Amino acid sequence: MEKEYFMEQALVEARKAYALKETPIGAVIVYQGRIVGRGFNQVELQNNPLAHAEIMAINDAVKNLARWRLYDCQMYVTMEPCFMCAGAIANSRIRGLYIGAGHHKNHIVTKHNDFKKEFYTDSKINFEIGILEEDCSRILVDFFKERRMVKKLD
Amino acid sequence: MEKEYFMEQALVEARKAYALKETPIGAVIVYQGRIVGRGFNQVELQNNPLAHAEIMAINDAVKNLARWRLYDCQMYVTMEPCFMCAGAIANSRIRGLYIGAGHHKNHIVTKHNDFKKEFYTDSKINFEIGILEEDCSRILVDFFKERRMVKKLD
Repeated sequence: MEKEYFMEQALVEARKAYALKETPIGAVIVYQGRIVGRGFNQVELQNNPLAHAEIMAINDAVKNLARWRLYDCQMYVTMEPCFMCAGAIANSRIRGLYIGAGHHKNHIVTKHNDFKKEFYTDSKINFEIGILEEDCSRILVDFFKERRMVKKLD
Repeated sequence: MEKEYFMEQALVEARKAYALKETPIGAVIVYQGRIVGRGFNQVELQNNPLAHAEIMAINDAVKNLARWRLYDCQMYVTMEPCFMCAGAIANSRIRGLYIGAGHHKNHIVTKHNDFKKEFYTDSKINFEIGILEEDCSRILVDFFKERRMVKKLD
């Protein structure tokens, strides 16, 4: 129940990205049952390849908590993180990771053996995949369908 | 010759980190023979786990070039990037990566098979390791030696 609530909040972030024509991925960071960091993908808006949802959420959380080690925090993200973001999660010491939809191509967290080893050994991250999976996946499918239609009309 | 010049500039950045008691790692990004991005590790200073030299340099370069795809740029970094930074380099589309010293533990770029596959296939990054290796390695060794001495005196 709690997990679904926080993933719904990550989806709220993803919808902000959608409204701004950004690939709709959102993330929130939770500390002691409260959201302390929020972020949505804004690579085009910021003109910055690093402005992924997870990075924005970590930047927000460390500012709000005024510390950089997030051992006691959990991240909820609507899609399986890329290499950079998985590394950022490990670097920020987050130990609980809840994922909505698996990535269609890069299964960084779940399938990459080397990363998995790294991810588990050094940072002991527990993760769970498939929370509100359908919603998290559908917003992406809808987005790309719409983008293709817009392109055709151009 | 040119490579050594730019790595020396990355070392200039690393020395800034050293002076601020940050793990001394520096990076520069080069576009058409000119430095367009600079960065040094400042995790403690910024109180942010993402403030690695490579991330700072990418943030600087995309701001200066006013675009986020750095296909035509090269990065020089004094130490082999961590997972997050290697992913950030791939995401920013940098295709030339010059490394000073290899990481003592995590050989992300050179040895992790899954990452290597990802790194090469998706982004076709050419990399070269060992440029001014001794200098890049020594600044780190000196730093940690000094830190241990300071701790003993505390």
